[in-house]
Amino acid sequence: MTSFVLFDADQPEAAPAPERIDPRTTGWQLSGAPDWSVQLRRLRGGLSDGVEVVDLCSGPLTVRILPTRGMGLWQATRDGHTAAWNSPVRRPVHPRHVELGARNGLGWLDGFHELLCRCGLAFNGPPGIDPGAKSPIESQLTLHGRIANLPAHRVEVRIDPAGPGRLSVVGVVEECTLFGPQLRLTSTVSVDVGGTAIHLDDRIENLAGGSTELELLYHINVGPPFLEGGARLLAPAAVVAPRDPRAAEGIEEYDVYLGPTSGYAEQAYFFTLHADGDGQTATLLQNAAGSLGFGVAFNVQELPCFTVWKCTQALADGYVTGLEPGTNFPNFKAFEREQGRVRLLPPGGVHLARLRLDVLTTSSEVAAYAERITALQQGRAPLVHRLPAAGFSPLT
Amino acid sequence: MTSFVLFDADQPEAAPAPERIDPRTTGWQLSGAPDWSVQLRRLRGGLSDGVEVVDLCSGPLTVRILPTRGMGLWQATRDGHTAAWNSPVRRPVHPRHVELGARNGLGWLDGFHELLCRCGLAFNGPPGIDPGAKSPIESQLTLHGRIANLPAHRVEVRIDPAGPGRLSVVGVVEECTLFGPQLRLTSTVSVDVGGTAIHLDDRIENLAGGSTELELLYHINVGPPFLEGGARLLAPAAVVAPRDPRAAEGIEEYDVYLGPTSGYAEQAYFFTLHADGDGQTATLLQNAAGSLGFGVAFNVQELPCFTVWKCTQALADGYVTGLEPGTNFPNFKAFEREQGRVRLLPPGGVHLARLRLDVLTTSSEVAAYAERITALQQGRAPLVHRLPAAGFSPLT
Amino acid sequence: MTSFVLFDADQPEAAPAPERIDPRTTGWQLSGAPDWSVQLRRLRGGLSDGVEVVDLCSGPLTVRILPTRGMGLWQATRDGHTAAWNSPVRRPVHPRHVELGARNGLGWLDGFHELLCRCGLAFNGPPGIDPGAKSPIESQLTLHGRIANLPAHRVEVRIDPAGPGRLSVVGVVEECTLFGPQLRLTSTVSVDVGGTAIHLDDRIENLAGGSTELELLYHINVGPPFLEGGARLLAPAAVVAPRDPRAAEGIEEYDVYLGPTSGYAEQAYFFTLHADGDGQTATLLQNAAGSLGFGVAFNVQELPCFTVWKCTQALADGYVTGLEPGTNFPNFKAFEREQGRVRLLPPGGVHLARLRLDVLTTSSEVAAYAERITALQQGRAPLVHRLPAAGFSPLT
Repeated sequence: MTSFVLFDADQPEAAPAPERIDPRTTGWQLSGAPDWSVQLRRLRGGLSDGVEVVDLCSGPLTVRILPTRGMGLWQATRDGHTAAWNSPVRRPVHPRHVELGARNGLGWLDGFHELLCRCGLAFNGPPGIDPGAKSPIESQLTLHGRIANLPAHRVEVRIDPAGPGRLSVVGVVEECTLFGPQLRLTSTVSVDVGGTAIHLDDRIENLAGGSTELELLYHINVGPPFLEGGARLLAPAAVVAPRDPRAAEGIEEYDVYLGPTSGYAEQAYFFTLHADGDGQTATLLQNAAGSLGFGVAFNVQELPCFTVWKCTQALADGYVTGLEPGTNFPNFKAFEREQGRVRLLPPGGVHLARLRLDVLTTSSEVAAYAERITALQQGRAPLVHRLPAAGFSPLT
Repeated sequence: MTSFVLFDADQPEAAPAPERIDPRTTGWQLSGAPDWSVQLRRLRGGLSDGVEVVDLCSGPLTVRILPTRGMGLWQATRDGHTAAWNSPVRRPVHPRHVELGARNGLGWLDGFHELLCRCGLAFNGPPGIDPGAKSPIESQLTLHGRIANLPAHRVEVRIDPAGPGRLSVVGVVEECTLFGPQLRLTSTVSVDVGGTAIHLDDRIENLAGGSTELELLYHINVGPPFLEGGARLLAPAAVVAPRDPRAAEGIEEYDVYLGPTSGYAEQAYFFTLHADGDGQTATLLQNAAGSLGFGVAFNVQELPCFTVWKCTQALADGYVTGLEPGTNFPNFKAFEREQGRVRLLPPGGVHLARLRLDVLTTSSEVAAYAERITALQQGRAPLVHRLPAAGFSPLT
Repeated sequence: MTSFVLFDADQPEAAPAPERIDPRTTGWQLSGAPDWSVQLRRLRGGLSDGVEVVDLCSGPLTVRILPTRGMGLWQATRDGHTAAWNSPVRRPVHPRHVELGARNGLGWLDGFHELLCRCGLAFNGPPGIDPGAKSPIESQLTLHGRIANLPAHRVEVRIDPAGPGRLSVVGVVEECTLFGPQLRLTSTVSVDVGGTAIHLDDRIENLAGGSTELELLYHINVGPPFLEGGARLLAPAAVVAPRDPRAAEGIEEYDVYLGPTSGYAEQAYFFTLHADGDGQTATLLQNAAGSLGFGVAFNVQELPCFTVWKCTQALADGYVTGLEPGTNFPNFKAFEREQGRVRLLPPGGVHLARLRLDVLTTSSEVAAYAERITALQQGRAPLVHRLPAAGFSPLT
C-alpha cells in the first residue's frame, strides 16, 4: 500500500503529489490493467472556477470525483457510455456561488448537477423552519442540506497492489459549526484496477460533545442513454407509496419511464426494499432494450429508505431519474423525526454507508443484474399504495 | 479572422492564449493603429481577489471588461479621460462576496461599481416576492437580478483584419437553474482598431424547454468629469415621467444636473424616446462646457424603455448618473408584467440588444453627437408628466 | 524604515515582495533577535482554500494574521504554548463560504475560529431587524457584523530598524456599500524584534459624505492551556453585571472558570473597568497554577465596554472564554443606541483602538501582570449586580 496526499488544509507544507498518478509516474505496475491513473485538476471559468476534479480511472472505467462539492461524483464513463445527466446547471458549480437560502430556500438547485450527490448531513428534504430543532442555529432548513456544497479539506489517493490492484480516493468533508452539528464525512471512492464497479464507502462521525441528528440521502441521478422512453426501474420492492397526489397519478407505471415529456411535473415514490440476510439489496435502471443499465447496490441496515425520483421532462430541462437510498425519505425533517427516521448519533458515534455503482454496457450484464434483483424479490408481490404517503415535500 | 480562447470551463485542456495579444505576440499588423492590444489579468486582494479583467485597447481607447461580473464594463479611457464613477464599493467585487439576499434583498449594492452593468436577466428592479412567479424557485426577487454577479465561463478574443481591423471579446454567461430560467447571454464587446467607440452586441437565448420571462436593463453609470454641476442630458424624448414624488420635485430640471450635493436623494425619470426609421436612437451626457460627452446609442425595438437615474450626492457617496436603456423600466416585476413590458422568450427564443458607447473628448465631437439627437427630436416637444408614473421602485 | 507590499488590489502591477521576509532575503539584521521573519502563505483545501495567512515572527513569538478574515489573529505561539481555541469550525474559513444571513442570521458562527476577531463595524451583537436603521440597506442585522468576513485588499510589511527593530503588518479592510456605511479599517499588527507582546493599532475611518454609526468589539478567544478548571479572570472591575438570567446564576463565581463541562450553556458578564490617568487598563486570563497567562490591555477611552464570555462547554464543542473590549456591549444595536453606546462618526471621522496582547509563559510574568491589575483596582471593591442588565442578547 502506498498513498499520496493531494492536499490537506491542515498540512499546508506536505510534499505535493505528482500531478498525475499512474504506472509511469509512480513505477507501480498493477495486474488488473496497464492504463490506470488518478489525476487532480482544477476547472477554470464561470461558476466552475476553482472546482477540483479527481479523475479516477480503473482502465475500463473512469469516475470523476468532485472534492469541492462534498466528494460528489460528477459522472462515470465506460465503453463510451457516460452515466450522468444534462442538468440545466451544465457544469460543476463552486459552492461559493451557491446561496442555499436564496430562492425561498431552494438555492441548492443552482448547483445541482452530479451523478451522485449527498443530501444531508444534519438535514435534507424541503426547506422550512424545523419546529423540532434544538436552537435557531439549526432550525432554518434549506433544500437538501449543506454537505453537497462543502469542499473536502483533505484528499488522499491510496494504491493497494493486492490482487488486481485497488485505487481509492479518500476525501474528508466537515459540516461543523459552533453551537451546532459537527459531522465529519470520510468518503472512500474505490475501483479495482481493470474493474467496472465504483465502490463508495462513507463514514459519518459525530465530532461533537453531545448527540446530534443525521439525515443522509444519496441523490443518484441518471439521464440518457440509460434513461429513455420505456426504460425501467428494477427494485426488490416490499412496499411502494407515491409521495403526493401527482405521484399517485402514475402509480400503475411507477417502474416504467416516459421519454422526454415537455411540461412533465416530477413524481416521487417511496420504497421499502427486500434484502438478503446481510441486508444487501440492489436496484437497477435499465434502458428500453435492456442493453444498458446503471445499478445501485447498498445495505438496507445502513440505508433503509429508497426513493425514486422521476423527472422525465424535456431534455433541455434536465431529463433524469433519481435512485435515492437514504436513512430517511426526503420529507420535512419534523415529519421524518416523528416517523423515527432521523438518526441520532451519540458523541463519537459513527454511521457507515456503503454503495456499489455499476455501469452496465451489455445485455448479458444487465440481465445478470436483473436476475439478482428477481432473486431478492423471491416472487413476493409488492404492497403498492394507491394513495399518497403523508409528509409531502415539494422537491425530492 | 483569428481567435484565441482565453478560457473555457468546458474545454479545460484548450491551448492557452498568449498572456497579451498584440502585434508583437501575434504577428498581426492592423491598419487602424499600431498599438492595439488585448490583455487578460486577474486582480489580487480583498473583495476583488480572483476577478478577471480584459483590457481591450483599440489604440486611442481602452475599455476594461469584467468577465467575472457578467461581462460588465468597468471603465473606458480615452485621451486621459476615464468614463467611470467612484462607487463607494471602490473596486470590482467578486460575485462570491455578494450575498444578493442580504440587506433585505438589496445585497446587490455591495458589488455595484461598473460603468456598465446589466440588470436581469430573469428579473430586475426592486426586491420582493413576485406574486406572478411560476414557482417558489422564481418568486424571491432580489435587487436587479443575478446576471451582474455571474461569471462568464468562456471568453474568446477575435481579430478581424478587414478594414482598419476589429477586436472583439466574446463572453458567455449563463443564468440557469433546475426548474427555473435558463438564459444564456453571449456578449460581444468590439472596437475598431484606431476607433473610439465601444460596440456591445448582446444575444440572450432561452435554453429551456419552455418559455421564460426576460427583463434586461443596461445600468450605464457615469461620474466626473463627464458629470458635473450644469452637465446636461440630451435625449430625443417623446415622453418623460418622474418615477415617484421625489423625482416629480425636479421635473422642471430633469435634463440638468446638480453638482455634488450632500444629502441629495436619488431621482429617476422614465422616457419614451424618438428614433429613426430603423429604431436607432441616441442619448448623451455632456459636461457643462460641452467639451466632454458620453454617448449611449441603441435601438428602441430592442430596448424600448429608457431610464435616467440622477444620483448627484456627495462625491464621497458616489456622485453619478445612470443612462439606462432596457426592455422594461426598473419597477416591480409584477407591475412591469401588467404593463406588458416583460418579454416572453419561447424555447430557443433569442433577444438581441446592441449598444454603441462613445467617449467624446472634444467640443466638436460633443456638438456633432448633440446634433444627431436634435435631428431625432425633429423639433417635437416632449410630453412631460408632472405627476409620478405608477409602479414606484425604491431604487433604480 | 523599509516596507514591502504583499499585495494591493489597487496596484496589481506592484513589484512582488519576497516570499519570505527575513534577515537572509532582506539583508536586514535587527538587534532584537536573529530569527525574525514575516511570511505570507495561502491555505489550500476545504473551506480554508484561498485564505491568506501572514506569519509574523519576532523571534520568540509568532502571531498568525488572517488578512482574508478582516485582519483577525488566528493564533499566537510562544515557548511552545499556543494561545488559540479549538473551535468546532477547526480551521480558518474563507468568507466566501460564510453566508451571514443563514441560520436565522447566525451564519457568522460557521466561520468563527480566531484568537481575535473583530465584531462590527457598522453593527455587532445579535441578529434582527434594527428599528432605528436609516434604511432597509442597513436594517437587516446579522450576528456580529461583516468585518470578520471581509478580506483586506492591501497588506504591507514594515520594518523599522530603530532600537531592537519593529515588524509591522498593515492591512486595509473596507466595509462599504452604496447608500450605506463606508468604514475603512487600517489595522497595524506589530511586534518588537525579540519581544513577546502583540501590538494592535486599529484606525477606523468614515469615508462617507455623511455621518455613520460604529460598533466595534474585539472578540478575543482563548482556550487551553490558558483556560482550564480553576483558571481565573483578573480585571480592575468597577462594575460587573450578568447579561441574562443564565449569567446571573453564576455571578458569585464570575471570575473563576470551570473545566470542560458537558452541556454548559454560555454565560456573559458586562464590565466597567478602572483605568489609569491615561485611560489604560489591563485584563488577564491566568491558568489555575498562575504559570500561564494571556493579557489584554487597552484604553477605556477608546474601548469603554468590556465583556467576558464564559463558554466552558466540552472540549469537543469549543471550550473557550472571550475577553472582549468594545465600544459597546454586544446587545441589540437598538438597545445600545438608546444607551448612548453606538458611536457616531462624522464624515472623515476616525476612531482609534489600540490593544496590547501578552502571551505570558512563566509564573513571574503572570504575577507581574496581575500586580498591575491589582494596582489599577486600588483596593476598590467592584459593584457586582446580582440581577441581569437589560438588553439580553442570545449570543456574545
